[in-house]
Amino acid sequence: MKGIILFGHGSRSPEYVQPFNRTRDLVAARQPGVPVELGFLELTQPSLEEAIERLAAQGVQTVKVVPIFFAPGKHVLKDLPERIGNAMDRFPALEFDIATCVGEVDAVIEAMASHAIEA
Amino acid sequence: MKGIILFGHGSRSPEYVQPFNRTRDLVAARQPGVPVELGFLELTQPSLEEAIERLAAQGVQTVKVVPIFFAPGKHVLKDLPERIGNAMDRFPALEFDIATCVGEVDAVIEAMASHAIEA
Repeated sequence: MKGIILFGHGSRSPEYVQPFNRTRDLVAARQPGVPVELGFLELTQPSLEEAIERLAAQGVQTVKVVPIFFAPGKHVLKDLPERIGNAMDRFPALEFDIATCVGEVDAVIEAMASHAIEA
Repeated sequence: MKGIILFGHGSRSPEYVQPFNRTRDLVAARQPGVPVELGFLELTQPSLEEAIERLAAQGVQTVKVVPIFFAPGKHVLKDLPERIGNAMDRFPALEFDIATCVGEVDAVIEAMASHAIEA
């Protein structure tokens, strides 16, 4: 079974998590039966590690990690692979795929440009 | 005349700027005659302040700042208004509008969810 983690930065602001919740709910509604978790680098809960544990506990074998970042910076290029490496040690039976950052996707760029024009 | 600033976080990674460039180019292509600048909080050039100077030098009177952030955290809720406040002191004739974070926009959430499913 496959599971999805939406990987975000995290923030001290409580309202920060809302767009992540909305995205997770939309993914879950479109793929019932595919577990989807949020996992944050810092400050916001649950952490990436907790998200992986939750998926493992549900019997997931392949984890697709989707970076909810605009572009590949340190958090995506260095922090994420490091943490996935640690998770592979803890969960040797799990397979991990890291997707492209959402901000590099044509449809996301298109939607951001439209917002910039219409806002 | 109106101008637009796409306001991003910034990163030490040189490839980080590419999705921002793509978004800016798309906005500029759809609205020829409306100046569009990138402006970053830190690490990546140009800074938000430089972007404002560039627009002012082009005769812009109203600056729409579009936060290229997924959600309102400290950078959007505190750092951005502080910097805009300073810019209002430097450029008293300029008007500023701050748009909603791109990550709070339905079409962006939709595109991120589709990417999470298809990636």
